[in-house]
Amino acid sequence: MKTEKKMQLALQLVSGYGVESSAWRMPGTDPAAYTNTDSYVEMAKMAEKGKFQMVFIADTPVLGGDLRRQSPTFPMDPMLALMAVARETERIGLVATLSTTFNYPYNLARQFKALDVISHGRVGWNAVTTSNPAAAANFGAQPLSRKERYAMAHESIQIVQALWGSWEEGAWTLDVEGGQFADMDKIKPINLQGHYHGSRGPLAIPPSEQGQPVIFQAGGGYEGLELAGSYASGVYANPYDIESAREQRQAIRQSAVRFGRNPDDIKLIAGFIFSIGSTEEEALDRRRQLMSLASDEIPDRVRYLGAMIGLALSVDAMDINEPIPTEMLKRAYPSPQDPRSPRALELALKGLSIRDILAHGVINYHPVVAGTPTQVADFMEEWFLAEAVDGFSVVPDIAFDGVEDFVNLVVPILQERGLYHEDYEGETLREHMGVPYQYGPL
Amino acid sequence: MKTEKKMQLALQLVSGYGVESSAWRMPGTDPAAYTNTDSYVEMAKMAEKGKFQMVFIADTPVLGGDLRRQSPTFPMDPMLALMAVARETERIGLVATLSTTFNYPYNLARQFKALDVISHGRVGWNAVTTSNPAAAANFGAQPLSRKERYAMAHESIQIVQALWGSWEEGAWTLDVEGGQFADMDKIKPINLQGHYHGSRGPLAIPPSEQGQPVIFQAGGGYEGLELAGSYASGVYANPYDIESAREQRQAIRQSAVRFGRNPDDIKLIAGFIFSIGSTEEEALDRRRQLMSLASDEIPDRVRYLGAMIGLALSVDAMDINEPIPTEMLKRAYPSPQDPRSPRALELALKGLSIRDILAHGVINYHPVVAGTPTQVADFMEEWFLAEAVDGFSVVPDIAFDGVEDFVNLVVPILQERGLYHEDYEGETLREHMGVPYQYGPL
Ligand SMILES: Cc1cc2nc3c(=O)[nH]c(=O)nc-3n(C[C@H](O)[C@H](O)[C@H](O)COP(=O)(O)O)c2cc1C
Ligand SMILES: Cc1cc2nc3c(=O)[nH]c(=O)nc-3n(C[C@H](O)[C@H](O)[C@H](O)COP(=O)(O)O)c2cc1C
Repeated sequence: MKTEKKMQLALQLVSGYGVESSAWRMPGTDPAAYTNTDSYVEMAKMAEKGKFQMVFIADTPVLGGDLRRQSPTFPMDPMLALMAVARETERIGLVATLSTTFNYPYNLARQFKALDVISHGRVGWNAVTTSNPAAAANFGAQPLSRKERYAMAHESIQIVQALWGSWEEGAWTLDVEGGQFADMDKIKPINLQGHYHGSRGPLAIPPSEQGQPVIFQAGGGYEGLELAGSYASGVYANPYDIESAREQRQAIRQSAVRFGRNPDDIKLIAGFIFSIGSTEEEALDRRRQLMSLASDEIPDRVRYLGAMIGLALSVDAMDINEPIPTEMLKRAYPSPQDPRSPRALELALKGLSIRDILAHGVINYHPVVAGTPTQVADFMEEWFLAEAVDGFSVVPDIAFDGVEDFVNLVVPILQERGLYHEDYEGETLREHMGVPYQYGPL
Repeated sequence: MKTEKKMQLALQLVSGYGVESSAWRMPGTDPAAYTNTDSYVEMAKMAEKGKFQMVFIADTPVLGGDLRRQSPTFPMDPMLALMAVARETERIGLVATLSTTFNYPYNLARQFKALDVISHGRVGWNAVTTSNPAAAANFGAQPLSRKERYAMAHESIQIVQALWGSWEEGAWTLDVEGGQFADMDKIKPINLQGHYHGSRGPLAIPPSEQGQPVIFQAGGGYEGLELAGSYASGVYANPYDIESAREQRQAIRQSAVRFGRNPDDIKLIAGFIFSIGSTEEEALDRRRQLMSLASDEIPDRVRYLGAMIGLALSVDAMDINEPIPTEMLKRAYPSPQDPRSPRALELALKGLSIRDILAHGVINYHPVVAGTPTQVADFMEEWFLAEAVDGFSVVPDIAFDGVEDFVNLVVPILQERGLYHEDYEGETLREHMGVPYQYGPL
């Protein structure tokens, strides 16, 4: 089946190693990829070869995870990583997450717009409110209530967009002959003062080729929906199945309509992790190897799997290389709290060993697709044709070869099936995404 | 005369055009250098060829100057500019100014240390308190008192340095075999809470090759001296003559001693503008051309010059291509408020035309040296041998050829005279500056 609309792809840059906590130990991986910007540049170049609309960096201002065994899960600094990528790529969009709670709007507006101008209009800001209490502590603050965080976020985004618009189209005249650097009649203060934030402006930065950066949003229930509907052109989401993806997409589109916008101007981008092999077994082997390099995490994972299906599983009481005993399985039921549990139970009932159920990624944060390039493409096709998503944020299990495999093996299948573009539609991220130019607030 | 000690050189990156307000219009200059990171990268590469210890970016979070005729005076974003430079240079130090008043310590600590790690230990932070009320307005704030700003700065620098030290030496084990990413016993929260700022930490960033970035400081009278003495390894200063430079250098060294430090661990770096020609007349021609491209500024400059020497000068009442009439000059006296005025009067008494007095740069913010490479070197030698400075922040009049001329023509003279090193002493900025490694607070 052919479709007119094409899916959009974002590559999540994770920490340079890949999303799996032991990817840093995999043969072939640069163990210092975390601090070596080459790793981000190489991934982005590969994604650009695959005509990805954008790379995407998640971020929380904390030391996340237990670094005894695991690598960090995002770059040391998202803007510096994207600056490195900007200079060594030509077309791909560059999206970073930064918190509305722990940054001044002027600084956000300045750094994102500078990068947007430097990259000739390829930048996006994923505006999140950062609920993590450890993040608040890093700023000497108590965690704010959800209501306060989202009230701040509205002020932050409004001020940032107004600062971005403080140079109107054509403000930068750069008339060497006539000696006019800029048209100051098109550069104006914004004079916004809210409850949490304020700024006079203007910025000292001219418009970019796309006017100003694209706003993205991620998470946050009803308040998040309002934020997305009001300002965002893209939403990163984490649905675990087609049904919930479709619901989220509908809710986001309706929210845009409620705020007087065209629902096609807001795109739902769903995350999933891929592990590619030339057979499904080979893909699983790749995940088994990752798991064996994270063997200290196995006891917790087994316990967690048990909780998902209502059983007391433990490495002390059973051999994880064996299926769950049939007697036990009779008592199993999927936890209604966890959307991942039906799939976990399904694999258990098929008779897979505990190790292999885990290798399938049933307890990962994102859905995991382990299989051949065709299986990965099938998964994406199914979601896309069901109108559950506008695109995907693809998350590599292991970055150094995973991204290359995706681009060389999965992308051609998607293109062959008419689901994904053959080349960039334009030069800017807005053109890649099919959302309009923008100067100032919507 | 030979000397054991060598002077240190910083190249001030200005806005990509050069420090003179009309440099953006000069033939040869890229009119879009402001938004083109190539301009910063090219300048830095040239400075590295000249073995400069560092490049230096000044910064205030405002739109400075009147962009109708003048270019901005610093890059769109200092950290992004330095990131571009970091990836395309090998040795040169990278110093950016960021305000202690308008940034959260966690964000400062994070971005500077990330860049320090990425650049293998070449980064410095020029910590300023930003008195400009327009900057405060961009953050929705009223200007703070001097006392408050400096109290904040102490807290900010202490927290930033503690965060930098939150990974001790050797904390990043990266043991692929044994599966230990980091030694968590060497990564600790800092738990600092002041009146204005606080942070729990730790950062998620390992030590760099120099431990952590170098602290610089600029300006601020008595409070600035205290700040410098407490934390800084370098001070950017603006003395207008040898005597005041020597006084400032002594004061800074004494302040370091008061805080229990070795006075040799703090370096005074003085700014000056150079305009190089193969003759002094050619150098002046260069400055005359700059002035003719900024002709709308001439009436103000003439009035200002008059005020400096106690005369009512005006473009309406006199021909600026002529000397100041002898009758008038009899009444002239140097303004005691302005350290630049004796030099202005000296040139007037020599019979220079008003235009040429101005072309000499007598009303520039920094001292101006317009002349042959030998004259520029003579100026530097005199200040350095008088122990008035430890080095210079050299500010190009016009960046695109000025930096090249300095490196190709002035640097060899300084080396020949034994005043300046032949090559880098080490790999990190601390090694270039001869200041010790540091982990955490001093
Ligand atoms: C797919 C997805 C990605 C997210 N990425 C981030 C991120 O990178 N950084 C962050 O601070 N928050 C991120 N969030 C949002 C927070 O996790 C958010 O605070 C969370 O959804 C809780 O919602 P609340 O803000 O309503 O409390 C993301 C959320 C989702 C669904
Ligand atoms: C050589 C020199 C360079 C400076 N560079 C900056 C700068 O780049 N950004 C900034 O905000 N302040 C800078 N300052 C400091 C402010 O101008 C400072 O606020 C000023 O010296 C007034 O002092 P105060 O802070 O005591 O009020 C610099 C000062 C000097 C002397």
